[in-house]
Amino acid sequence: MTGYSQIAFDITDRIATITLDRPEKLNAYTRHMMAEICDAIDRTDKDDDVRAVIFTGSGERAFCAGADLTPESGDRPFASAREVDDLSDDIVRDGGGRLTLRLFNSKKPLISACNGVAVGVGATMQLPMDMRLASENARFGFVFAKRGIVPEAASSWFLPRLVGMQTALEWTMTGRIFGADEALKHGLVRSIHPQSELLVAAHELASEIAENTSAVSIAMTRAMLWRLSATEHPMMAHRMDSRSIYRLSRSDDAKEGIASFLEKRAPEFTDTVVDDMPDFYPWWQEPEYK
Amino acid sequence: MTGYSQIAFDITDRIATITLDRPEKLNAYTRHMMAEICDAIDRTDKDDDVRAVIFTGSGERAFCAGADLTPESGDRPFASAREVDDLSDDIVRDGGGRLTLRLFNSKKPLISACNGVAVGVGATMQLPMDMRLASENARFGFVFAKRGIVPEAASSWFLPRLVGMQTALEWTMTGRIFGADEALKHGLVRSIHPQSELLVAAHELASEIAENTSAVSIAMTRAMLWRLSATEHPMMAHRMDSRSIYRLSRSDDAKEGIASFLEKRAPEFTDTVVDDMPDFYPWWQEPEYK
Amino acid sequence: MTGYSQIAFDITDRIATITLDRPEKLNAYTRHMMAEICDAIDRTDKDDDVRAVIFTGSGERAFCAGADLTPESGDRPFASAREVDDLSDDIVRDGGGRLTLRLFNSKKPLISACNGVAVGVGATMQLPMDMRLASENARFGFVFAKRGIVPEAASSWFLPRLVGMQTALEWTMTGRIFGADEALKHGLVRSIHPQSELLVAAHELASEIAENTSAVSIAMTRAMLWRLSATEHPMMAHRMDSRSIYRLSRSDDAKEGIASFLEKRAPEFTDTVVDDMPDFYPWWQEPEYK
Repeated sequence: MTGYSQIAFDITDRIATITLDRPEKLNAYTRHMMAEICDAIDRTDKDDDVRAVIFTGSGERAFCAGADLTPESGDRPFASAREVDDLSDDIVRDGGGRLTLRLFNSKKPLISACNGVAVGVGATMQLPMDMRLASENARFGFVFAKRGIVPEAASSWFLPRLVGMQTALEWTMTGRIFGADEALKHGLVRSIHPQSELLVAAHELASEIAENTSAVSIAMTRAMLWRLSATEHPMMAHRMDSRSIYRLSRSDDAKEGIASFLEKRAPEFTDTVVDDMPDFYPWWQEPEYK
Repeated sequence: MTGYSQIAFDITDRIATITLDRPEKLNAYTRHMMAEICDAIDRTDKDDDVRAVIFTGSGERAFCAGADLTPESGDRPFASAREVDDLSDDIVRDGGGRLTLRLFNSKKPLISACNGVAVGVGATMQLPMDMRLASENARFGFVFAKRGIVPEAASSWFLPRLVGMQTALEWTMTGRIFGADEALKHGLVRSIHPQSELLVAAHELASEIAENTSAVSIAMTRAMLWRLSATEHPMMAHRMDSRSIYRLSRSDDAKEGIASFLEKRAPEFTDTVVDDMPDFYPWWQEPEYK
Repeated sequence: MTGYSQIAFDITDRIATITLDRPEKLNAYTRHMMAEICDAIDRTDKDDDVRAVIFTGSGERAFCAGADLTPESGDRPFASAREVDDLSDDIVRDGGGRLTLRLFNSKKPLISACNGVAVGVGATMQLPMDMRLASENARFGFVFAKRGIVPEAASSWFLPRLVGMQTALEWTMTGRIFGADEALKHGLVRSIHPQSELLVAAHELASEIAENTSAVSIAMTRAMLWRLSATEHPMMAHRMDSRSIYRLSRSDDAKEGIASFLEKRAPEFTDTVVDDMPDFYPWWQEPEYK
């Protein structure tokens, strides 16, 4: 997949930007858009020139207005051509969750620049991203219960990790649309920006990571925090960070990290995610869908 | 059980209200009150005319002053008539935990309207509720360490999910009594109201859910958030929300949800928790007490 | 080990204070300091005259500036004399994690009085403490990705429990140094104090626990909150708090707790951690490092 039709893909200054690009449909989500985003993330994972990924929506109205419910989308949202008995059948898999599980495994930091309306999967797709910035006109809604369905895209796992149980329950049980201020107050987004400065702020944050840190460190850190924080005992974290430090301490990046620190200068890291991840990465076995 | 002696039970406009009703004892908790609340929740779960449940205390002084420690309660708090060796013996089971585990499994949203003092089990029984509102004179205390015992009612599991580890540790380690402001600051309660407006505010929140959402969606959402957020990997959430959406997308409520959205009108959901839950609900096996 | 060379150890009014004591090195962390702190915690666990432990740094500049990276430390940070293939080899174990896992198992409350710079292990060693106070000049940094390594000391498990996923990811992915205000805003510290009042405030908090609570209750509460909150279902908490209350309700401390409450006087608890913990403590099996 090289050219995309429902997203725009750009790399500038080692920052990739994925723009949901159906402004006439408020960037509504389709199976095709899902496939394009997943393909783009495969590219950013494999491209050592990409140090972070920004997500935004095309136009000034919407980040993503949710699943495209119109007949012409061809998506038969929440339905499929045939009934299946086997709930592990691939046809049963929610398209939002396919995306969020792929984002969960990204090796690069994911930053959302939420530039407008984000409801349904438009809100839940942002949850496995690492940091979320919002424009002043951003609005969010976990509207599933108002549509007779349930929170999808594994959001029952992600949302309480970001905003705590009480807020997660209120937002999903009322299905209410709420603004950037409420999102900031409860920690869904980290900052609010004027629309015209949103992408600049997202780039600055991405660049702060790109310019100061080791790509291998970031890929490891991302997997460690999301995965090890959900285990029952800190021992698993101790095991994984011990061997990570043991291996990485022999790396060129660690030598440069210490040298640049002692010399009080900016680091110039050279290790890459493609070639220099520790041999035990990934340390986990991904659970099957069944 | 039809008439209650230690609680009042009322249903108005599809909202049930359970009032802890021993005002002369500051609504102190007894085994009998526990049984009455559990019975009332069995009723709200089975009654499709109930869309949400509000908990409050009788009078203006207390929500619940904790376990009734007075001899005339007949409860022998923290003690029992005979010693047992088998710690899985039913006599060992904490009465607060019997209640909170029952609330944990409620199919209807639970809203606390905390109208005064809430200490000990009066505080911990509110933790498995979904949303907590407080009056200006509400006070809370996780006082167990001051009494020579430990936090009960499974509060070691619930409290950190609501307020984070640091606050949970400070409140349980000092046993300090604190006011509504501190409860709000740390996310134990979602809002503070003048005493005279507390129940009105709780009803408004309950009605927002009742009027805009599918009862089946809410019962599923409640189980998903509380249970799936505590698993080690988002895959379990992806499995359950995928098959939930697959099944529910064929429901009358989903058709009405999409239709009312496209027609920009309020939905009129007809599916019921009694008859229309997905066939795989409950998807979990409840762990035994042992 | 009786005399310490890299820490100071003091007990006053039943409060132990462990002071990281290499002010000329900004209290930088070494393997030797780790061994001394672990030894001191063994002492506080076994000493019934100690009811809480305060950690602070010597001087007014630093709590702990991280691992001592200078050659004269003899620590060969992030490196070791020989390569090993067996990643369960003891030589692979991170020294920060050895400390934080020991702190995790402390029977006494741990309070940090962070009096200045706290970066690297200087920041992560504070995470398994129960409460953190900061001076106005405190600064924190999870700088690992800037050094080409990864967050250590099991901080991938601890940090998200304190500040949520978004903040934990931003702090570890940028490696940014931030001040006490940001630490307070996101819940890393509970309060900020002028430098001259920091230790006084920490002592007041420690004394509030020492004077009002049962030592056995606190040791149980500490283990319950840290451990049971990380399980998948509240049933495990219900099991452990049920049998804790069943056993402790027969204790002298519970009798004194109820009596002092009914008599409206301060309690005088006499049960001790050394002699009076419930027979089923510890109820868990510590996972192996492997």
